[in-house]
Amino acid sequence: MAEHKRGRQTVVFRNPPVITHTFSIAGPKEGRGPLGGKFHRVLPDLYYGEKSWEKAEIKMLRDSIQELLASANLSPGQTDLVLAGDLLNQNIAASFALRELPIPFVGLFNACATFADALLLGAMLVDGGYVDTVVAAASSHYATAERQYRYPLELGVQRRPTAQRTVTGSGAVLLQTGGKAPGPKITAATLGIVQDMGLKDVNDMGSAMAPAAAATIEAHLSDLGRKPDYYDLIVSGDLASVGLAITKELLQQKQISVQNNMSCCGIMIYDLARDGVEAGGSGAGCSATVFAAHLYRELVAGNLHKLLFVGTGSLHSPTTYQQGESIPTIAHAVAVEA
Amino acid sequence: MAEHKRGRQTVVFRNPPVITHTFSIAGPKEGRGPLGGKFHRVLPDLYYGEKSWEKAEIKMLRDSIQELLASANLSPGQTDLVLAGDLLNQNIAASFALRELPIPFVGLFNACATFADALLLGAMLVDGGYVDTVVAAASSHYATAERQYRYPLELGVQRRPTAQRTVTGSGAVLLQTGGKAPGPKITAATLGIVQDMGLKDVNDMGSAMAPAAAATIEAHLSDLGRKPDYYDLIVSGDLASVGLAITKELLQQKQISVQNNMSCCGIMIYDLARDGVEAGGSGAGCSATVFAAHLYRELVAGNLHKLLFVGTGSLHSPTTYQQGESIPTIAHAVAVEA
Repeated sequence: MAEHKRGRQTVVFRNPPVITHTFSIAGPKEGRGPLGGKFHRVLPDLYYGEKSWEKAEIKMLRDSIQELLASANLSPGQTDLVLAGDLLNQNIAASFALRELPIPFVGLFNACATFADALLLGAMLVDGGYVDTVVAAASSHYATAERQYRYPLELGVQRRPTAQRTVTGSGAVLLQTGGKAPGPKITAATLGIVQDMGLKDVNDMGSAMAPAAAATIEAHLSDLGRKPDYYDLIVSGDLASVGLAITKELLQQKQISVQNNMSCCGIMIYDLARDGVEAGGSGAGCSATVFAAHLYRELVAGNLHKLLFVGTGSLHSPTTYQQGESIPTIAHAVAVEA
Repeated sequence: MAEHKRGRQTVVFRNPPVITHTFSIAGPKEGRGPLGGKFHRVLPDLYYGEKSWEKAEIKMLRDSIQELLASANLSPGQTDLVLAGDLLNQNIAASFALRELPIPFVGLFNACATFADALLLGAMLVDGGYVDTVVAAASSHYATAERQYRYPLELGVQRRPTAQRTVTGSGAVLLQTGGKAPGPKITAATLGIVQDMGLKDVNDMGSAMAPAAAATIEAHLSDLGRKPDYYDLIVSGDLASVGLAITKELLQQKQISVQNNMSCCGIMIYDLARDGVEAGGSGAGCSATVFAAHLYRELVAGNLHKLLFVGTGSLHSPTTYQQGESIPTIAHAVAVEA
């Protein structure tokens, strides 16, 4: 069996890559939320000085990567690879962001699990000695996502209580070969398998994603022979309140109790009682932004020691919805330890 | 510097992964082309027994992976990872294909360079000992791409001479740890950097992609200290006739002559003088299908010994075109040696 492989879906790292720097940008609504003081930059409005929301999202992702590299005193020429993605058709936020950054680039897409994809692939490539310095990044934008996936904002469509609000935000993190600098390390990762329970309600992605989150967490713990309390925190990105409750219940049915140590980036980023965001946040930028702004700082500050970060993605499109298809989902897990 | 890294953009493999099996499916027009006898399966029509073209593309990609695994006598449970992507919004061909295949999955998107992404990432993960058995796959479909990117087929819009025809096809290949079985090996890979010369004509993607192809080929040869004639064949996927001529000229300006040993999957798959495909083929499935059906067989048969496979992608979307943006492009190179 492959040297780093454990069980069916998990890999462990021999030379765990270090997350040395992070940078996050959040939208105005997110800036007024509970994590408002932690984002590296908060936008004054959804346009960020650009003529369209799409151009604003591109700029947000590009600036996150540029500021990340500046904080690490690295030029693009000293950076080996960017692994990035977003929710827009043809991944244009990532592709256009990279237009002005001469760095090798591979685009990823697993919907809101894209940032987890980038973290786990980046960790393998650094650990394996293929690259020294990798940026993992993702973005999403409320206004670009709404008009692409659902309705034009101007239509003012009422949202259902199970709906999630796409986070305006981008997060970028720098993975480097262990020993280069101190920082939390990526120690293991579990690759997710697509799940589809036949759910078709695109206004309830949390219920659709819960089986994927539960399956990946179960596989991770089983592959490594760990109990859930090995982790201070298991955090999904982004089941939101409906999906989180179902995930906890699904795991409980298998005698895996995460009642006291599991939360969700989509819940942390808003005040659900106050912000009018229904079940909570979603979007590829949700978990990326919360990780880069908040979870990383908690690991560095010693408030968290062992984190299991579980990116969750709903892999449908408006076309599949219109053609009557159900919603396939996926979750990838990354263990980060201080 | 990272153990496997050479120069700025290239990695070499210590335990080169072997491509042990391939499977290809092509559309009816491709089946009547010069490679018609080589595809593992040719569809009778664009629907493949499904109710929509999108469902047909999903089935095509799923069947390619299933038949690939069957030919290798592997169950999904014995397969470590699928790396796959396509051109459809939200990568639905890959995501929905994986719905019925319980195999860990990471979705990729670099437009028509997606298959090269899958090959090079898959090779790193096998060589590094993270997985033993990886499927790299990609698809595209003439009718799904036309109505998503351009016009409904029913409109009968006339095409420009520089336009490329999206190939209906899917290709899947199996990468395994060296020593498991004989076959051509992936020995090196060069990660591409996004290029954008300001071109805006979405009916001429070849001209937009040529600088990316030339830059990656130049970087590959320079990083490894090789001359172009190291390779029996340098093949792009898919510059087509307009982009190939420009790429050759750009390289010639740098004293790199590929006049006699460079071709393109988008030219090989059609009879350009007869098939009415303008400049030639394109689509994520073009290079995947030609590699799986033709190039791989040539390597196995000993007609090719050293191949440089250069996936090229045009990273725009209809939205960026409508917003007046130019076309960023990328190319990744993979060296395959018999």
